[in-house]
Amino acid sequence: MRIDALQYVRPSENVFRQMRAGGLDAVHITVGYHEDFAGVARNLGDWSQWFEAHPDLIVPARSMADVAKAQTAGQTAIFFGTQNPLPLGADLRQVAVCHDLGLRFMQLTYNQQSLLGAGCFETHDSGLTDFGRHVVRQMNRLGMVIDLSHAGFDTMADIIAASTRPVALTHGNPGWWHKSPRNPPDEILRALTRAGGMLGLSLYPHHLLDGSACSLTQFCEMTAEAASRYGVGHIGIGSDLCQGQPDHVVGWMRDGDWRPAQNAGAVFPDQPVWFVDNRDWDLIADGLAAQGFSGTEVAGILGDNWARYLEQALLPDATVQAKEVMG
Amino acid sequence: MRIDALQYVRPSENVFRQMRAGGLDAVHITVGYHEDFAGVARNLGDWSQWFEAHPDLIVPARSMADVAKAQTAGQTAIFFGTQNPLPLGADLRQVAVCHDLGLRFMQLTYNQQSLLGAGCFETHDSGLTDFGRHVVRQMNRLGMVIDLSHAGFDTMADIIAASTRPVALTHGNPGWWHKSPRNPPDEILRALTRAGGMLGLSLYPHHLLDGSACSLTQFCEMTAEAASRYGVGHIGIGSDLCQGQPDHVVGWMRDGDWRPAQNAGAVFPDQPVWFVDNRDWDLIADGLAAQGFSGTEVAGILGDNWARYLEQALLPDATVQAKEVMG
Repeated sequence: MRIDALQYVRPSENVFRQMRAGGLDAVHITVGYHEDFAGVARNLGDWSQWFEAHPDLIVPARSMADVAKAQTAGQTAIFFGTQNPLPLGADLRQVAVCHDLGLRFMQLTYNQQSLLGAGCFETHDSGLTDFGRHVVRQMNRLGMVIDLSHAGFDTMADIIAASTRPVALTHGNPGWWHKSPRNPPDEILRALTRAGGMLGLSLYPHHLLDGSACSLTQFCEMTAEAASRYGVGHIGIGSDLCQGQPDHVVGWMRDGDWRPAQNAGAVFPDQPVWFVDNRDWDLIADGLAAQGFSGTEVAGILGDNWARYLEQALLPDATVQAKEVMG
Repeated sequence: MRIDALQYVRPSENVFRQMRAGGLDAVHITVGYHEDFAGVARNLGDWSQWFEAHPDLIVPARSMADVAKAQTAGQTAIFFGTQNPLPLGADLRQVAVCHDLGLRFMQLTYNQQSLLGAGCFETHDSGLTDFGRHVVRQMNRLGMVIDLSHAGFDTMADIIAASTRPVALTHGNPGWWHKSPRNPPDEILRALTRAGGMLGLSLYPHHLLDGSACSLTQFCEMTAEAASRYGVGHIGIGSDLCQGQPDHVVGWMRDGDWRPAQNAGAVFPDQPVWFVDNRDWDLIADGLAAQGFSGTEVAGILGDNWARYLEQALLPDATVQAKEVMG
């Protein structure tokens, strides 16, 4: 089973056909960066029209059972999530509303301070906030993936410690390979994976050693090292593919509306030549095999590991009563 | 001129008549705790009906010129503000929208973490955030009072240092008199007032030494000590009068919707016997005179100091261009 744990592709029939060509069984799609609840709902409304237009190619998913059905039917299952907790506002009850709406992943922060914690580009890292601790408990209970991506490292450490269920870094790479505020250090990745969590390796050039020029061999060497440190079963892919998005989206991602535009001229970096779109997954499989990974290990990294994780992570925690979390 | 820098009275003809009886020329009224933009707008809608019903008693104010007109007409001028920056969302541009809507005061935090800084009951004090620094600049430019009340002490210190114009603590007392997360220590109050800012002394029992049993003499002794430390010209009143609010409001203030209710049974404390409602301002005047304050000093503390501060604070800063702040 092939699963990409994060994409922000601009939806189109072409992209959906490429997902099918690449053998993607499931993709987690971002439907919120700086959007509030209404904005996320509108993005979901856009997607609902794509599902109606291309039922042969894509289908919405809320569980791994949905993915299994999609696989049988030859469709790609689409999970939804947000890279910012803004849709919650300051209201713990909105976690369940977002879950009802179909969201199955949520980052507790994007790049800056949120009400739940601090992002990796915020000057001071607050760690997980008091409100954030309640949200973690509710996401744990409902079976929503807590996504560490973009959090500050202290906030990441707090989330890993606070969560009673394994969490995930859907898209990022090890800091020891390419140092970046987006790529956490070894101790965070050890804590994440020791607790049963998943690391989704990113193919976004700014997260790669040598950026757009990063070779497939470099990427797969890093994957081998990560597998040796954290266990191959905890490694997956979260490509962060932003195919088809216009360049002005880059500035909006970075600046939102919270500061004067500082990135008005920013553009998307070129994808590495070996991962231009979803048709290139076989190249990664070949690259991993060349590093000595077995067929089972390659299949694990390209999706089976995510499948096994999500099978558990998306189930509600029946041992916790609503009133224990919500009062 | 008598000015109360913070009340959360439940509006009624009775309360407005008491404001007139107490000689109140202006009152800053809270229209937002946990409300988002739409909630604040609804609260303002409620108030607009009160203005229509009682034009002889109250009138909305956006400047000290409005207060002067109200004084001449024998009305109490009502300023509006929020105790939480939630109406801004994550959007710097909303500062101007809130200003256009008539808000002239805003706390950068209520009790917990906000997107701008940390409240005084948040476990970890983040200080002023990156977004918060942009909001400070825009509030400085537009002429909105940055209210330190309820902020964490590190966040307060950051705001005082970041603001190019004097800020205010509209309702709180010195921590050296009654230690509380709501009452900042001496060094914060020195920094606040040295920068030209105002301290609005609170009459809310939880902010008072001995709570509801605090005597007028105790309060006025503290006022005298504060005046000696910070300069009598920097002292005013922000009574935090919550007259007429039902007790369930206390739990809502504390818990909002961000955590399970922990204060469901909480009630408003009894007011001190010497400040039950707005008719009691003369008692405070007498108490201050008994401490040796001159007539001019008493008048300053009861409103002239706020008037002088607000005369400046509510003017836009013509030396700063919009594009310097907003890009």
